[in-house]
Amino acid sequence: MKLSKLVGDRFKERPANCLIDSHALMVRGGYIKNVANGIYSQFPPMKRISQKIENIIRDEMDKLDGQEVLFPVALPGSLWEESGRYESVGSELLRFTDRTGSKMVLGMTHEEASVQLVREYANSYAKYPFMIYQIQTKFRDEARPRAGLIRVREFTMKDAYSFHTSQEDLEQYYQKVYDAYSRIFARCGIPEVAIVKSDSGMMGGSISHEYMLLTPVGEDSIAICPECGYSANVEAAPSIIKNENKIPKEELKEVSTPGTGTIEELCDFLKIPAENTAKAVVYQKNSDDSYIVAFIRGDLDINETKLTNAVGEDIHPAVIEDDSILTAGFIGPVGISDKVTVYFDNSLEGIDYLVTGANKVDTHYTGFNVERDCPDAKYVDLAKITEGGICPNCGKPVINISRGIEVGNIFQLGTKYSKAMNFTYTDENGKEQYPIMGCYGIGVGRMAASICEVRHDDYGPIWPITIAPWQVHLCCLRSDDAECKEKADEIYETLQNMGIEVIYDDRKARPGAMFADADLLGVPVRVVVSPRNLAENVVEISTRDKSIDKQKTPVDQAVTEVQNIINKLTADINSKVNK
Amino acid sequence: MKLSKLVGDRFKERPANCLIDSHALMVRGGYIKNVANGIYSQFPPMKRISQKIENIIRDEMDKLDGQEVLFPVALPGSLWEESGRYESVGSELLRFTDRTGSKMVLGMTHEEASVQLVREYANSYAKYPFMIYQIQTKFRDEARPRAGLIRVREFTMKDAYSFHTSQEDLEQYYQKVYDAYSRIFARCGIPEVAIVKSDSGMMGGSISHEYMLLTPVGEDSIAICPECGYSANVEAAPSIIKNENKIPKEELKEVSTPGTGTIEELCDFLKIPAENTAKAVVYQKNSDDSYIVAFIRGDLDINETKLTNAVGEDIHPAVIEDDSILTAGFIGPVGISDKVTVYFDNSLEGIDYLVTGANKVDTHYTGFNVERDCPDAKYVDLAKITEGGICPNCGKPVINISRGIEVGNIFQLGTKYSKAMNFTYTDENGKEQYPIMGCYGIGVGRMAASICEVRHDDYGPIWPITIAPWQVHLCCLRSDDAECKEKADEIYETLQNMGIEVIYDDRKARPGAMFADADLLGVPVRVVVSPRNLAENVVEISTRDKSIDKQKTPVDQAVTEVQNIINKLTADINSKVNK
Repeated sequence: MKLSKLVGDRFKERPANCLIDSHALMVRGGYIKNVANGIYSQFPPMKRISQKIENIIRDEMDKLDGQEVLFPVALPGSLWEESGRYESVGSELLRFTDRTGSKMVLGMTHEEASVQLVREYANSYAKYPFMIYQIQTKFRDEARPRAGLIRVREFTMKDAYSFHTSQEDLEQYYQKVYDAYSRIFARCGIPEVAIVKSDSGMMGGSISHEYMLLTPVGEDSIAICPECGYSANVEAAPSIIKNENKIPKEELKEVSTPGTGTIEELCDFLKIPAENTAKAVVYQKNSDDSYIVAFIRGDLDINETKLTNAVGEDIHPAVIEDDSILTAGFIGPVGISDKVTVYFDNSLEGIDYLVTGANKVDTHYTGFNVERDCPDAKYVDLAKITEGGICPNCGKPVINISRGIEVGNIFQLGTKYSKAMNFTYTDENGKEQYPIMGCYGIGVGRMAASICEVRHDDYGPIWPITIAPWQVHLCCLRSDDAECKEKADEIYETLQNMGIEVIYDDRKARPGAMFADADLLGVPVRVVVSPRNLAENVVEISTRDKSIDKQKTPVDQAVTEVQNIINKLTADINSKVNK
Repeated sequence: MKLSKLVGDRFKERPANCLIDSHALMVRGGYIKNVANGIYSQFPPMKRISQKIENIIRDEMDKLDGQEVLFPVALPGSLWEESGRYESVGSELLRFTDRTGSKMVLGMTHEEASVQLVREYANSYAKYPFMIYQIQTKFRDEARPRAGLIRVREFTMKDAYSFHTSQEDLEQYYQKVYDAYSRIFARCGIPEVAIVKSDSGMMGGSISHEYMLLTPVGEDSIAICPECGYSANVEAAPSIIKNENKIPKEELKEVSTPGTGTIEELCDFLKIPAENTAKAVVYQKNSDDSYIVAFIRGDLDINETKLTNAVGEDIHPAVIEDDSILTAGFIGPVGISDKVTVYFDNSLEGIDYLVTGANKVDTHYTGFNVERDCPDAKYVDLAKITEGGICPNCGKPVINISRGIEVGNIFQLGTKYSKAMNFTYTDENGKEQYPIMGCYGIGVGRMAASICEVRHDDYGPIWPITIAPWQVHLCCLRSDDAECKEKADEIYETLQNMGIEVIYDDRKARPGAMFADADLLGVPVRVVVSPRNLAENVVEISTRDKSIDKQKTPVDQAVTEVQNIINKLTADINSKVNK
């Protein structure tokens, strides 16, 4: 491919709306173009990267005996009604009607479609286990798309669905996918991806894992124990709090606390630490806007995912409009309206002295003790695990919180979908059973953007050779010099004939502009042909990662050397792939 | 791939709702499954066929210096408003709103998206010409999906867009695509595809061609001249009618014609041929439901596409509700309400004696002559060309009308989209110009179904080897016989190691069931391993097209022979590809 013909602009200025580097570089390098909020077109370099990632994924899926299929993008709403998700999923599920008025949705995940495809076929135990997958466009109507391809509304995803006749069989297969995913990320050049326990969320099911690429710009927070290696999404990490003074110290007493609507104001006023307060955090159910009040130790924060799981349906932070039910800023468990649903976080268990709202303006209770004053209280784990928190695995108070981008996820779904959609098979004894499912996803565009985020310098991406848009970037520094052009043309032809993918900068441009473009395209091996070097009968070879820098190579050895470097870069990546 | 694990059912009964053979075979063979009206999932064999077709298309597009990109499926309505198509396209464009209330559409074609992608990039003449293409999901909300994958609502399509600085350059490139398309169809095993002139319809532009696979089940009618080779979609074929008796024979006279609301009744009553009537055909504009009346010779039919083009906007057959404007069954040009727009087909020119409605119940005029009685009448070509009609090219009255499936189309778009979307470049003289565009489409699923339609027998598809889901179908007739299974396993391994794609029927099944499945999968080369043949130290090799039938081949020569047959089948197809 000649760079003079490559569709797409490359430019120097960082666009103001790009908050993270990968987004800026992928716009500046002519990889993507915004079409609407969270919706992008892909220029040729991005499409090439996507195809390479897809082929690696496809290869690993095929090795797991996965069979590639294709589900529709536009699905009938009735299919999602069968599973119950037409109602239960929020507005990220895009619902519309077709010309006949039939309910439709844009597929954001395809559990329902996978069941629909196989439920007649897989009617006997002898057909199991099997796995089907697709690589296709998905749409999630995200409220806040951000960061280029990291969080978009439309994206290409590989989604796989496996079907089993026993939990043990699912677990065995799950482990195979677990390992295959590690290989996929390693083959794409990011072997450092961390595997963390995750919350299953709207997918249902029990065990699930996320593959996290750790980077400060990640949206997810991950709790990692440096002692035992435990790692989990904070959404899924249990928060362990040990309070030891269980016996109440004082009587419950109403005190006047004027103007103390926040925990900070309250602690200032009463000169107590936040650990001695029971804070109320208020949500509403999406379904009927009824109030949920979660009480938690004042120094901790509610983990919204845990609370959603406890409530069992979607919730949102409350807008308190009706003072007759809740007194904002002064809400407490004692005497609270019976119109609200109350939860107590584990962190309140066993504290001898707490201050909490008295459900009257400018008034709190002191000397509050949950066990004595709310004897019916049941504790649940609602708190976010914190830096220095107790590791749920080894018990040491050494948890680190890191940021990460979720680049893949795997779920043990169980029978959630087969039961809901009445999908059964006949077992060896002639008995009807529900198949047990797993599902496994990787977003292709997000993976590319994440790799760019952790593999770039100030000048552009440093693409791993396995997914780079081209393997070699050839610059002819003086295309107006006949010999220079002839040599460069010859190297271009030879490399192409060897099956090597070359982007050839044949433009009449300043060297600075050429090198800036080469940096933005991030191609691993660079070959520069110039009259000055040709005078010495050499070309200059560099790698984008600077491990080789302007290595002078005799012209007649250039293509062999390029091949050797490609082989070495490829071997480096493969050496980090677990077999 | 082992057939025992292949996801999808194969069965014998023709489903009642399958009107054409390809649809029935693709359902019966486990290729596709209906998900909603006109929306299908693809089982692995169909996905494999699609990928092979896509790779052939991709290869030919790349040879034309096409650059693969990706546009979104969900597009902002504002982009279609720019081109004017948000309003002008009918309800096959699926419009919806996202969670923020923004107008969106599902992409049914991507002219707007292609302009959006390149309009900043292609700002100088030096960037031209170039072509970008994608292979992606499209959605058209068809009113009447039918015939399996032939006419669906969701489909995978290759759409390409080329950009030029002169009409000559577009025409040169158009010719290259024209040839590449012929190669694509030939490489997919259907070299007989006919190229016909077509109507550009909602795409705009002037010259366009369709690639038609002739089959009686096709939806399109094609006018072909056996004398000169002229061929065109009837929608685009001019209808030439020569009437020679120009001078009126009689006066215009109102006559009572009770109960003659149809042309047949009228001709019966008056004992005249239909050629001597001027028939009224009534449509309404989609925009405001106002009436359009097209007068045409009574023995001919209106070509709705031509009438739509004449009107300049979308129309639909009328529902006449208001008698004060039109008298259904007795509509005529003389004295017709000025609230309707009137068109006269060329076929009425120069007829001396016509009967036509008098705009009163049970009343017609006789002796009508357009030139005398409607002196302002302007003629347009609105009639469908008919079997035996005059060839618009050579003038001989020998037109044949055939049916065909449109498997591809190419359009010279001109500046329709660049002008509407204000997309310009600077020419060599520093002047702003509008780029000239071409666009080129092929539907992948429709191509597969069409090939099945013209390449099948009573038992299943006969896939051309270039697109077959596998190259070899290996049957082990007795997997419970150790030697038989061992030999079959060995052949399976060897063929796979040679890079040959094998579907291996390793099931314990009756030979009849195995062969029925093999017929339904339509794989070109079949190898049967059985104890009886092994006793003679041979296997049986057949081809799905019966050119080789149960050829006994020594076991140790089996894989070589299979390779030879694959080579020959491939060479047969390539020999029909124009270089």
